[in-house]
Amino acid sequence: MLFHVEMKVCFPHDMDAERAERLKADEKAMSQRLQREGVWRHLWRIAGQYANISIFDVESPAHLHDVLSQLPLFPFMQIEVRALCRHASSIHDDDR
Amino acid sequence: MLFHVEMKVCFPHDMDAERAERLKADEKAMSQRLQREGVWRHLWRIAGQYANISIFDVESPAHLHDVLSQLPLFPFMQIEVRALCRHASSIHDDDR
Amino acid sequence: MLFHVEMKVCFPHDMDAERAERLKADEKAMSQRLQREGVWRHLWRIAGQYANISIFDVESPAHLHDVLSQLPLFPFMQIEVRALCRHASSIHDDDR
Amino acid sequence: MLFHVEMKVCFPHDMDAERAERLKADEKAMSQRLQREGVWRHLWRIAGQYANISIFDVESPAHLHDVLSQLPLFPFMQIEVRALCRHASSIHDDDR
Amino acid sequence: MLFHVEMKVCFPHDMDAERAERLKADEKAMSQRLQREGVWRHLWRIAGQYANISIFDVESPAHLHDVLSQLPLFPFMQIEVRALCRHASSIHDDDR
Amino acid sequence: MLFHVEMKVCFPHDMDAERAERLKADEKAMSQRLQREGVWRHLWRIAGQYANISIFDVESPAHLHDVLSQLPLFPFMQIEVRALCRHASSIHDDDR
Amino acid sequence: MLFHVEMKVCFPHDMDAERAERLKADEKAMSQRLQREGVWRHLWRIAGQYANISIFDVESPAHLHDVLSQLPLFPFMQIEVRALCRHASSIHDDDR
Amino acid sequence: MLFHVEMKVCFPHDMDAERAERLKADEKAMSQRLQREGVWRHLWRIAGQYANISIFDVESPAHLHDVLSQLPLFPFMQIEVRALCRHASSIHDDDR
Amino acid sequence: MLFHVEMKVCFPHDMDAERAERLKADEKAMSQRLQREGVWRHLWRIAGQYANISIFDVESPAHLHDVLSQLPLFPFMQIEVRALCRHASSIHDDDR
Amino acid sequence: MLFHVEMKVCFPHDMDAERAERLKADEKAMSQRLQREGVWRHLWRIAGQYANISIFDVESPAHLHDVLSQLPLFPFMQIEVRALCRHASSIHDDDR
Repeated sequence: MLFHVEMKVCFPHDMDAERAERLKADEKAMSQRLQREGVWRHLWRIAGQYANISIFDVESPAHLHDVLSQLPLFPFMQIEVRALCRHASSIHDDDR
Repeated sequence: MLFHVEMKVCFPHDMDAERAERLKADEKAMSQRLQREGVWRHLWRIAGQYANISIFDVESPAHLHDVLSQLPLFPFMQIEVRALCRHASSIHDDDR
Repeated sequence: MLFHVEMKVCFPHDMDAERAERLKADEKAMSQRLQREGVWRHLWRIAGQYANISIFDVESPAHLHDVLSQLPLFPFMQIEVRALCRHASSIHDDDR
Repeated sequence: MLFHVEMKVCFPHDMDAERAERLKADEKAMSQRLQREGVWRHLWRIAGQYANISIFDVESPAHLHDVLSQLPLFPFMQIEVRALCRHASSIHDDDR
Repeated sequence: MLFHVEMKVCFPHDMDAERAERLKADEKAMSQRLQREGVWRHLWRIAGQYANISIFDVESPAHLHDVLSQLPLFPFMQIEVRALCRHASSIHDDDR
Repeated sequence: MLFHVEMKVCFPHDMDAERAERLKADEKAMSQRLQREGVWRHLWRIAGQYANISIFDVESPAHLHDVLSQLPLFPFMQIEVRALCRHASSIHDDDR
Repeated sequence: MLFHVEMKVCFPHDMDAERAERLKADEKAMSQRLQREGVWRHLWRIAGQYANISIFDVESPAHLHDVLSQLPLFPFMQIEVRALCRHASSIHDDDR
Repeated sequence: MLFHVEMKVCFPHDMDAERAERLKADEKAMSQRLQREGVWRHLWRIAGQYANISIFDVESPAHLHDVLSQLPLFPFMQIEVRALCRHASSIHDDDR
Repeated sequence: MLFHVEMKVCFPHDMDAERAERLKADEKAMSQRLQREGVWRHLWRIAGQYANISIFDVESPAHLHDVLSQLPLFPFMQIEVRALCRHASSIHDDDR
Repeated sequence: MLFHVEMKVCFPHDMDAERAERLKADEKAMSQRLQREGVWRHLWRIAGQYANISIFDVESPAHLHDVLSQLPLFPFMQIEVRALCRHASSIHDDDR
């Protein structure tokens, strides 16, 4: 099932630069693994913001929470989740 | 280029039922034509709301506005637009 | 899976009183059928408001949307949905 | 009587990791004791957030405040309380 | 137990003047009866607004909801409820 | 004349514990002196929050500001003031 | 004592034009009488809005409410009141 | 001097279609006259909305209010005004 | 021309007390000089808040920005500006 | 294509003054280079705020994001983007 997730990253200004880079690299690696596994189905940057809009394809809300809460940037993100479902007018098979 | 569009439908309570049905049928037909043409790339229902989240693939903001303002339900919708761009961590070719 | 749903009823002031009573009776009947089926797991009134807080136990967001959009009062309600999952500290078996 | 409580945890970024772990362990222990006593009747995680939605069964608003203000994470939580009452359509005996 | 209640009256502009006057007179009579019974403990006008701030002394949230939902102006009011409890610094015996 | 005042306390997380205790003790002492003098007429805790709702009986807005700005916790509080006046339906002599 | 008052006029779109003109003329007459009496001390238009910002000099919040609630446009206005007091840095004698 | 103005058009749903067309034609004519005179310096559509963002070059706030309040669509628009001034980093002569 | 300005002071909690006092003294001196020059026409304290409401009489938005941005407390204030103009009902000559 | 961008600068209070000056100088240099290249088409200060309103002329949302995210002050700014398009009533050739 699909969930619409917005993530906004808010680093503290006094964060150690090296730690921030390592966190971002870890986040990218985990994000790409989840994309390859089909869990993180879409990932877009919101223009002008350190934020993304994503579509997750998971087995349950619990699955979604496990995935999101293990992201390396989770402690630094404001996350908003909305449940999606198939639209009666959609003709795209995978807009489930 | 991609735009993230949220549409929320607000029919007046005293609207003629037949007119509402005709508008909804016209909206569905135009929506499916735009999906077939590749302009309305994704279309999801937000669970529990008379609202959708959509991804449009258009040539410009002007193109997007032409498409949205010609929808039969346009006068009855609150629409919010956000410009998207490719995320550096995306591995999906069409998450442009 | 569980969803937290808030429903706020907003009748137009010029609504026909008889129609309003019939809608409320139909809503009550459908609500009680869904409670008996285990889909509408909890239902509470928010003190001082024509509104409720409910917990739904459904198979998917699509199932939730089907249930909510067929409620007789759906056209007159503002509905907000949040996905729940089991809390690591919970000891209640059915707080899934 | 029942109260609907939302708790959102906001740790300062420079918090000592050991202290945070100890606070979370203490919070879990107290939460489970209150659940066993029947005071903290339901406890759910909001998917994607370091936050919960809970139902408390207490003797009075004063009782509720005593319980909440003694939680180890109280100084780090935004808490919102709403009074619930039985819904005329409920068929669940303990949705008091 | 005490609850803090804000009520804001929103009459539709096309409301029949005679009906409005009758509703207001009924509201006043019921309000004064509830004040004499000790249930509606305080009642103040917010300066410049068709709105009041009140303190209710009731047996439970259910009792509060019964009282509020039977007010003649209930269908025309936005109502916000907050549960109060005794403050550790209060010296007033009846600021329970 | 009466004013409705909401005070929400926001201590910085790295505040010295001893200083916080001393400020709270001073606040309590001043609050109780003002209650004895009849200036701080009501004082209630909002359930679940480090916040209060109070009714002040002062000679003028200037008097109110003098009182509030000399509270020991003033630099750590968000304060919201609303002017009250007697409600035409009130039967309580001191709901002035 | 001084109060800062913002008034925003919201006429219903189907209002009778003649009635609207009569109400506006009555409002202007009462406003100018109150200005001559020194009660309505300042009156400014907010650029681009059917709204004003005003300073009232009254004896009490009750006096303010009497004045505002008798304005012919009162039923069509959103009104926000804030209590002012003399600023320690002011050198203007009548910025009381 | 320059002002940044956002205008959002909100027609009532039961508005006479012919009257709406006439108002829009009158609005366009007046808008183009003001553009030719140099008063309405920029005019852009916000993509997806019946709204515009405009830059006005006027002699004073009073001049701006006169212009805006005489627009045929003024009674149907929500208008927000912000005063602009030259930015120290600007190299465009007419970004005054 | 007149502008309505709200200023809210937000000192960081760990600010050096001596520096804060010096900034406040400098602010007061500059404020009084601007009042004597007729630029800062009115200055009121909002009751219960470390905030003021002011009326500035300046030559242009650029003049206003120069004045505000040179205030010693500018880096610690949230400032909101609204352009005013003469109200057709005003009888006060200097409510320009 | 044109985008409307609002940027609000929020420096942390404990920022090193020399670093802040260097960042501002770098920001100014890059801003002026982008203006000369025609990308940053308009740049205005919002009166009374450390904030600007800008119009960017870019090839795509991705181009816009590249430009904004490379600004030296990007980590210290809240940025809001809205897509613009030509207004049917505009007579200005470059209000594209």
